[in-house]
Amino acid sequence: MSTGIRVTVWNEGVHEKELPRCKELYPDGMGRAIGRYLEKQPGIASVRCVELDDPDQGLSDDILDTTDVMTWWGHCAHDRVTDENAAKVQDRVLNGMGLVVLHSGHMSKPFRRLMGTGCMLKWREWRGVGERERLWVVDPAHPIADGIPEYIEIPHAEMYGEHFDVPQPDQLVFISWFQGGDVFRSGCCWHRGLGKVFYFRPGHETFPIYHQEEVLEVIRNGAKWAAPTRVRGGVQRGNIEPPLEQIS
Amino acid sequence: MSTGIRVTVWNEGVHEKELPRCKELYPDGMGRAIGRYLEKQPGIASVRCVELDDPDQGLSDDILDTTDVMTWWGHCAHDRVTDENAAKVQDRVLNGMGLVVLHSGHMSKPFRRLMGTGCMLKWREWRGVGERERLWVVDPAHPIADGIPEYIEIPHAEMYGEHFDVPQPDQLVFISWFQGGDVFRSGCCWHRGLGKVFYFRPGHETFPIYHQEEVLEVIRNGAKWAAPTRVRGGVQRGNIEPPLEQIS
Amino acid sequence: MSTGIRVTVWNEGVHEKELPRCKELYPDGMGRAIGRYLEKQPGIASVRCVELDDPDQGLSDDILDTTDVMTWWGHCAHDRVTDENAAKVQDRVLNGMGLVVLHSGHMSKPFRRLMGTGCMLKWREWRGVGERERLWVVDPAHPIADGIPEYIEIPHAEMYGEHFDVPQPDQLVFISWFQGGDVFRSGCCWHRGLGKVFYFRPGHETFPIYHQEEVLEVIRNGAKWAAPTRVRGGVQRGNIEPPLEQIS
Amino acid sequence: MSTGIRVTVWNEGVHEKELPRCKELYPDGMGRAIGRYLEKQPGIASVRCVELDDPDQGLSDDILDTTDVMTWWGHCAHDRVTDENAAKVQDRVLNGMGLVVLHSGHMSKPFRRLMGTGCMLKWREWRGVGERERLWVVDPAHPIADGIPEYIEIPHAEMYGEHFDVPQPDQLVFISWFQGGDVFRSGCCWHRGLGKVFYFRPGHETFPIYHQEEVLEVIRNGAKWAAPTRVRGGVQRGNIEPPLEQIS
Repeated sequence: MSTGIRVTVWNEGVHEKELPRCKELYPDGMGRAIGRYLEKQPGIASVRCVELDDPDQGLSDDILDTTDVMTWWGHCAHDRVTDENAAKVQDRVLNGMGLVVLHSGHMSKPFRRLMGTGCMLKWREWRGVGERERLWVVDPAHPIADGIPEYIEIPHAEMYGEHFDVPQPDQLVFISWFQGGDVFRSGCCWHRGLGKVFYFRPGHETFPIYHQEEVLEVIRNGAKWAAPTRVRGGVQRGNIEPPLEQIS
Repeated sequence: MSTGIRVTVWNEGVHEKELPRCKELYPDGMGRAIGRYLEKQPGIASVRCVELDDPDQGLSDDILDTTDVMTWWGHCAHDRVTDENAAKVQDRVLNGMGLVVLHSGHMSKPFRRLMGTGCMLKWREWRGVGERERLWVVDPAHPIADGIPEYIEIPHAEMYGEHFDVPQPDQLVFISWFQGGDVFRSGCCWHRGLGKVFYFRPGHETFPIYHQEEVLEVIRNGAKWAAPTRVRGGVQRGNIEPPLEQIS
Repeated sequence: MSTGIRVTVWNEGVHEKELPRCKELYPDGMGRAIGRYLEKQPGIASVRCVELDDPDQGLSDDILDTTDVMTWWGHCAHDRVTDENAAKVQDRVLNGMGLVVLHSGHMSKPFRRLMGTGCMLKWREWRGVGERERLWVVDPAHPIADGIPEYIEIPHAEMYGEHFDVPQPDQLVFISWFQGGDVFRSGCCWHRGLGKVFYFRPGHETFPIYHQEEVLEVIRNGAKWAAPTRVRGGVQRGNIEPPLEQIS
Repeated sequence: MSTGIRVTVWNEGVHEKELPRCKELYPDGMGRAIGRYLEKQPGIASVRCVELDDPDQGLSDDILDTTDVMTWWGHCAHDRVTDENAAKVQDRVLNGMGLVVLHSGHMSKPFRRLMGTGCMLKWREWRGVGERERLWVVDPAHPIADGIPEYIEIPHAEMYGEHFDVPQPDQLVFISWFQGGDVFRSGCCWHRGLGKVFYFRPGHETFPIYHQEEVLEVIRNGAKWAAPTRVRGGVQRGNIEPPLEQIS
């Protein structure tokens, strides 16, 4: 991976067209806000931004074949992602592609397929203003926490609260505190097959959270952590004969 | 749970009708061999045996409504389980029902949906005779290992080998050694939603493994471990307003 | 374990003699407040309350030999527990005894020895009044959450905040929210050797937290979860010859 | 970490002086055999080899201050490492230094302190020749498995068998199969405080295992995985006042 990872930023891109506040905050889309940050980072070789309305929903084989890590943001159009494409993304992850799922992406088809659970949670967007969130690092030895302060404060955020219906994370990196009285497992890591999945909570279509440096730093760290690693010669499955040892 | 758990033993029941060796070993089916053992065990209130050819594939609401823990054995007819029924079993687990998945059930629809991974593995049924397997307890503090010897030896078994494409178990209880040179994570525990899943490797349609006392003891322990527990008042999800704390 | 578990409640018992507020809240000690609740619970065969000032610091072989699960509360006199006794408790846990560590017991010698880490955390006892704490269940499938509401509210509590320097819990059952802006992993489970350890945060010498029903219910559930289970014939370690299989 | 990690290879260095077979295999010690491989690897900035008989047992502050990751091999002289030095190594790990513990290092003082358990296991050195071992990758998405084949075969090895008395690994990368009928969790990862610990089983004073390429590759990957990462500004612990949020 000496030349760095190739990131594809997948963005639903619907709110940006419909909500004036979203358009104002992210004139060319949340995806590009994230992409612009990532493409300047050491260790990242290339960044490509795609959207749901792109040909093949931005999920063609050509694109996937040249993606090491995909970030995923979706919210109001999860259902428009075809089942075929959702299965394809799941399959790519199981074969090594990293996946960084952001905010409301917790209900996206690829994430739900990979988790096997409902992925629902509590939520509240209080009076359009949201509430204060503070993400605390609970695993300071984790590479995703590298260079991140011990907490990140987000002044206005939609609340996500427990119980978050996902499998116990293999590693839990952040826990969020919310002003309204809730907590949330905000940075969760899982290995799935040959691939890795990082869920990171922050972000919203009507808050400038993807302009906040520390949030972008975590997304970058997550992408690096999720970079593919490869067993030499691959992993064999299926009927294996003869055995490696003689069976008497 | 003072009066004990209600177990439903789900058995595919196809090999028993088609393979003479299977019929000979399990004249009334593998499911009933397991059921007969379980129904005599303290802490188990009732056992019901159902099969794929039963009405509603043995998965009617009536049955599921009165099931605390389901054991699942399938192999050659995974595809005949309808997607609706597979989704129903998954949903029941996420709402608290325990699931004990046996042997080739690793490729069953409900298990694959709950895992989110391919669930494939290496396998070998050597010359019809199989090979020796030894399951070692690696977590002797786990309730599923209670009363089980530090290893279980199975004289003739189909081999299952790594890589087993499942999420890292929340708790790994057994690792298998195989004569032919392979190892396997043979006893794996996961929490999923409000429910619990235990995968246990031993068993086969042409070996008398479900007549082996220690194997049955583990299935019993697994069923007890997977018994539903309930958060008082249930778990709320969705839009939660107003907040518990005042947001200034 | 049909006749139930034998619990020993170990209580430091120093604050009770020195702090008027502590004496007022717990006239015969925090330990006995916990013990009185536990001894009425189904599944608990017997409860014995011991203190640091007892003969052998309440940790004689006689006592340990007849203890299935020990609960531990200490704070200002951790150092007075002898290293020999701390090693003894650690050794008992590794051989199967359950340990439920409460509140400031996070800095006790037995807990620190079992964790291998510093076990330090952030803390704040705000103006003697404390602050509101809310413990959220994050693993509703866990037996320790059985019958517990989805959150427990404690009106006045000392704050404990992250980073809590313990190994990643094998299972995380509760996360605390604090009014002052902090979060904490409040209910943590670990297997250690043949034994189990549950750390539960609530409790304090100057707050009536051990009179709160839900807190006591969790301690009871923790004690039951930590009850010893036994591998049949025990676990062998050391030089094992000859091998089980012939080595050609 | 752009200029790479600084590795200190700590080697007991006693067998090399006393056992002719060990001297023959490793004329300048096992430590230097490992060090020579590591120093040529990209991403590793420097390698220093130290031994028990060095000044300060090779564990002076000067050395530790300039060590990112330490590898540790010991066997017959665990007790000669002073308690002060063992505590110092533990403390360094809790503050970020990576530790890669090799083979019989499982009973070393620093490892046992960090684990909190007995760390014992089954072992057998069969007729001086040992037996065949095969390490299977069970987590092919893990960076330590990067570039490693799906199994590593070691023709002559001392057997280590379960139950291995360590905490459940945060991530389990390898499981060993042994000819004599045993299995072992051979590649185990843990986070501890701000640091990371990797235990890797292979190696022995009388087998040429540290001349085997794949074994050295795993040690290199382990060192890279264990490299320190840093929370910006560090982690605060202790009494924290005033609170971040106003407490009404």
